Formats: sequence, structure tokens, C-alpha cells
Amino acid sequence: MSSNKILVIGGGPAGLEAARSVAELGGEVILIEKRERLGGTPDREGYAKLTHHWRDASEAMGELAAAVTSNANVQVKYSAEVKGMSGSAGNFTVEIAQSQNGEAGGVAKSINVGAVIIATGFQHFDPGRATQYYNYYSFPDVITLTDLEKMLKEHNVVRPSDGQAPKKIAFIQCVGSRDRQIGNEYCSKVCCGIASKQAIELREQLPDSRVMIFYIDMRMYGYWENEIYWPAQEKYKVNYVKGVISEVLKKGDQLLIRGEDTTMSRPMEVTMDMVVLSVGMEPSAGTRAVAQLMGVQQHKYGVIDAGGAGGHDTVATSAPGIFVVGAAAGPADLNDSISSAGLAAARAMSLVKA
Amino acid sequence: MSSNKILVIGGGPAGLEAARSVAELGGEVILIEKRERLGGTPDREGYAKLTHHWRDASEAMGELAAAVTSNANVQVKYSAEVKGMSGSAGNFTVEIAQSQNGEAGGVAKSINVGAVIIATGFQHFDPGRATQYYNYYSFPDVITLTDLEKMLKEHNVVRPSDGQAPKKIAFIQCVGSRDRQIGNEYCSKVCCGIASKQAIELREQLPDSRVMIFYIDMRMYGYWENEIYWPAQEKYKVNYVKGVISEVLKKGDQLLIRGEDTTMSRPMEVTMDMVVLSVGMEPSAGTRAVAQLMGVQQHKYGVIDAGGAGGHDTVATSAPGIFVVGAAAGPADLNDSISSAGLAAARAMSLVKA
Repeated sequence: MSSNKILVIGGGPAGLEAARSVAELGGEVILIEKRERLGGTPDREGYAKLTHHWRDASEAMGELAAAVTSNANVQVKYSAEVKGMSGSAGNFTVEIAQSQNGEAGGVAKSINVGAVIIATGFQHFDPGRATQYYNYYSFPDVITLTDLEKMLKEHNVVRPSDGQAPKKIAFIQCVGSRDRQIGNEYCSKVCCGIASKQAIELREQLPDSRVMIFYIDMRMYGYWENEIYWPAQEKYKVNYVKGVISEVLKKGDQLLIRGEDTTMSRPMEVTMDMVVLSVGMEPSAGTRAVAQLMGVQQHKYGVIDAGGAGGHDTVATSAPGIFVVGAAAGPADLNDSISSAGLAAARAMSLVKA
Repeated sequence: MSSNKILVIGGGPAGLEAARSVAELGGEVILIEKRERLGGTPDREGYAKLTHHWRDASEAMGELAAAVTSNANVQVKYSAEVKGMSGSAGNFTVEIAQSQNGEAGGVAKSINVGAVIIATGFQHFDPGRATQYYNYYSFPDVITLTDLEKMLKEHNVVRPSDGQAPKKIAFIQCVGSRDRQIGNEYCSKVCCGIASKQAIELREQLPDSRVMIFYIDMRMYGYWENEIYWPAQEKYKVNYVKGVISEVLKKGDQLLIRGEDTTMSRPMEVTMDMVVLSVGMEPSAGTRAVAQLMGVQQHKYGVIDAGGAGGHDTVATSAPGIFVVGAAAGPADLNDSISSAGLAAARAMSLVKA
């Protein structure tokens, strides 16, 4: 029995946009979300400001979610996960387990859908795993981009060790990215922009602070380059240093960061009050699980391979009728997620209406 | 009189994908193209290999074009340009001039459409304009990425001055990009990847050559990072030097490039047989003209402003019912163009069927 329903897995930005686009095209959507809320990582991690336009993240995600929940064509299933799948393009049977009243598990129900859009996103790299030389789990004043984002949201940027406002703050880029030693050779794409955005917010919230960013290459385009990177340097006097940081040590109540300033080609030691690790993106547990369960090909980094035969069908997985959007296919910013979600919606709708 | 037809302006990758996606959703498309052929810049400029997958560009563009010309829902008008426009979302009247038998101009005809997708693309930066210190128009062996692409396609990479195979070749990145002096502060996004791709091809076609790339930041992600940048360094021994080149001079029958090696922090002079300028992207004349004619807001760099009120409606222009895709909205690679085209197709179809 073929179906013209479309299953969207994941209620973050990419999944919400996919669901919205399908519904606005007149299609019927079942959107399943593991959590009890929509909004994905920006919501769960309590991001402060989203770019573009420095919008409040919960407000922006709330708008995306409202566009979906207010559309009668979309049925949202919270606390739900995929447990099994069979069939083929146009006619998939998917087992969905939905927990009742917060109880895990629940009885799996079968649904029949014509196409699937995977939007299971990413998780932040855990800087304790293989980069212990930054001492994230030992020194309280070594934090991550996500930790700082929460502080910025609360307008309460302080050193966890003593509750004092830090005067000297360093970002270390490419933590968990572009690093063969830990197996993540890839670039996480957004960390340069996010660190620069946070550096600007730091300089606004703590005007007396000094902010340095240690980087390999600063990678940004478009909005990120024009509205973030240039002002960060010129208006906000953020200090960018091309350099590789090899370790973070304790020095009294400060942190000593040690490495090589590759521009000046000499060893470097700087004391800081707080160190921010620019952690990269990895495929989420959900992305890995769904990929395995659905038998779609994964890249060696665990993300879902996209591109199709020609390489440019950006949302095609190895399985006809199953599409992938957003960061489930590799590091992506919000714009990437929105665009790919729209393409997948068009592709999936074309398939089920054919 | 409202219309459910959709006008796509431009037959490059973004316009072809937009037309295809609309048509596959069951919509009626009028696709207008200024030239007598589809395929856009990759076709017109005779690109050699496209990434991903190093596909022959004319073959890949031919496939995209065939998907459109074989679809009965798409009407293609060649040698056609927009000459006027009135109306509003759902009901635009557009004047199209189509030249007959190669004669320019032709009589403008009115068509009625419900939505417009602008896919007018980019043009390559002209390195003679404000970057004369590279002597593109004076020294024959100073060429651009597009010049080299043609040589690579013909498997005939030689110095234009003497027809000899070059032994030492340098790429200079960010020519016409990230350069305040010439008014293009923005990053052109694709040049790092394209230069690296060409460097690999050079090393394959001329195994005895030495290839250097002088850069500010090497900016690449995903496929470009994993399949191009790492192999370029490790397998193909391309030599990446962080440095700023201030001039290209003549030295006998060679070229002397002079600048600063910022990693070694010292002045640098190197002789080369051939110098390749990695020219950036600028909005095409067509993009500027269409933006003016349709009254959609342009960024200060001339590209069409996209994003909508929230900043993330990546294909929304300032005018309801008019969408922008691909490089008309700023530097974009093929994947960006394909994804944004799909989103615009979904948005436009939702509008005209509402």
C-alpha cells in the first residue's frame, strides 16, 4: 500500500523547516522528536543569540516550531523514536516508539509513509575525550562555546572557579576538528563564526576584557565574514592570532596557555583568566542510530553520506526515498539547514505525489 | 488575474535545479536564459572538472539541462531577457524580450506569473581592474583560475608566452576578495577549493611541476576539506604558504612574485614560470540589472539581499513572491546553489497554489 505521507525525523531547525515546507506544499507530515519539545540543539543547549540578526535563539526556534504546530497538515509526535523500518520508496513501514507520560520506551506502532527526511542533527564534540591536554574536566575556568553561550544568555559571564568576571579570555579553535590524532580531520564549519560572535558579545558585556582567538584558518563567508569577522576585528578589537595551542596549564589562579604563534614563528605562553574551547560538531547519537537502522550509507566520520550519483543531489542518501538535511549530513549552519530542508521537502513531495 | 506559473530567470545550475524542482512538483515553469544554451557559467567558461566527483562539467551541466528540457512542464526561452515588471506576489506581469535568429532585442512580450525565482548568478572578478600590480594584462604568463581551467580541460597546460610546460606554478588567493582597497571585503568562498582542485590536476598532468598556493586563510569544508585539501597537501605535495603577495614582476622569462611570508614573518621573493590569480565572484551584470528592474534590495556588494525578516529564509528577497537562488545572492558553490534552488521551488509552489 503506497503512502503519500512524509516522515520527518527530528524537530530541530532542519526538521522544522522540512515539515513546514512539505505542509505548505499540501503534503501530510508526521514529525517525530525525541524530546518533549521542538527546537533542537539551539533550544536544548540554551543558545543566546542566533545569527543572522543576533536574534534570541529560543524566540527564533519558537517561531519555526509555531509554523509547524499551527499547520493542520503536520502531526507532531514527541518523546518518539524510530525502532524499525522496512519497505521501499513510496511505501515504507516505520516502527515508532513513543513514551507515555515521560516513561521511556512505550509500545512501538507501525506507520506507513512514502518518504523519509532525516534531520537528526549533531552533537558537540566532548573536549574531555581525546583532548585532555586542554584540561576541560580538571580546570573549571576551561569552558566550551556552549558553556559560554549559556553565560552570555544570562548576561552573567564569570569564572566558574571564583565567580569573578574574567579580564583575559582566549578562544582555542578547532577543538575536535581538523585533528587527525582524534580522527576528526574535517572542519566543523561554524566554530570560527560562533567564536567571533561570542567574542563580540564578550566585549559588549565585559568592555574591559581582552579577547584573543587562536586559530589555524579563520573560515567564514557571507554574513559571517561581513557582519561578524570584520567588526570583531575593527570595532570590537578582538585579537586574532594564528597559532596552535598545545596545552593549558594552571598558573596560580590563572590559566597558562602554551603553544606556537605561527605568524611570529616562535613559542608562546600567555596567561588567561578563562579559556573557551571552540568545540566542533559530530553526528548525534540519533544520526548514527537512524543511519544504521535505515541502512543508509555513512561517511567515515559517521555523518550520513549525501549527494547521490552525481554528488550534487545534496539531500539524497544512498537509499531512494530517504533524504537527509541539516547537520545529520555534516557540519552545517542554520542557513544550510534551512536550504537543504526545502530541497528535501520538494524532492519528497515530488516522490509521493508521482 | 492571478497566475500559478513560475518564472525562473537564468539557466545555470541554480536556475536549472529550481525549474526542475518546480516542474517535478507539478508546477508550470517559464525558464528564460540570456544565451542560446543552458548550463550557465560552468558551461560558458568551459570548466574542466566539477566537484564533487571530478565530473566533466559539460556532462554534468548537460544532465541538469536535460532534466529540464525533457519536462513538459517547463517552457525554455533562449536569448531572452526581462525588460519590465509590474504587479505583486501571485500576479506579476513580466516583459520578456527574446531575440529572433540571433538578432538582439526582439519585441517584448508580456507574461503573467505568480512567482519569480532569480538565478542570474555571478561573474568572475576582472583582475585588471584594480589589481594591476599583478600585471594580468601585461604579462601573458599571469593567468586566472578560469584561464587555467580551460587549459586543464584540454590537457594542454603551457605558458602562453612560449608554449612550454611550466615547472613552477603559483596560485595567489583572494584576488578581488577580502580586499578593502577594491571594495570587495567579502570572501568568495569557492576559490580556495577550486585552486586546490586545480593544483591537484596540475600535479597529475605535469608530474614534474612544483605548485605553491599563497593564501590568507584556507577556507574549505566537507567534501572540499576531506577530498581536496588533505590530498592536495599529502598525496600531491602542493605547497601551501600563508603569505600576502604584493606584486608580480618580470625576471628574464620568468615571473618574480614578491610579498611577505607571514608564517616565517619575512619578506619573500620567488620566481615562477606561471602565476594563477584566484579571482573571486562578483554579481553578474544580469543580477544587478534584474535586481534594479524588480526593485529588490541589494547588498552593498551588489548581490541580492536574501534572508527575510528573521535572516534565515535563505531565498526570500525584500519583495514577496520574488525569490533568489545560487550566486545571485552571494558567493555559492554548486551544492549551495542546488539546495537553495530546491527551497525556492518549494516556497514558490506553496505561494502559487495557495
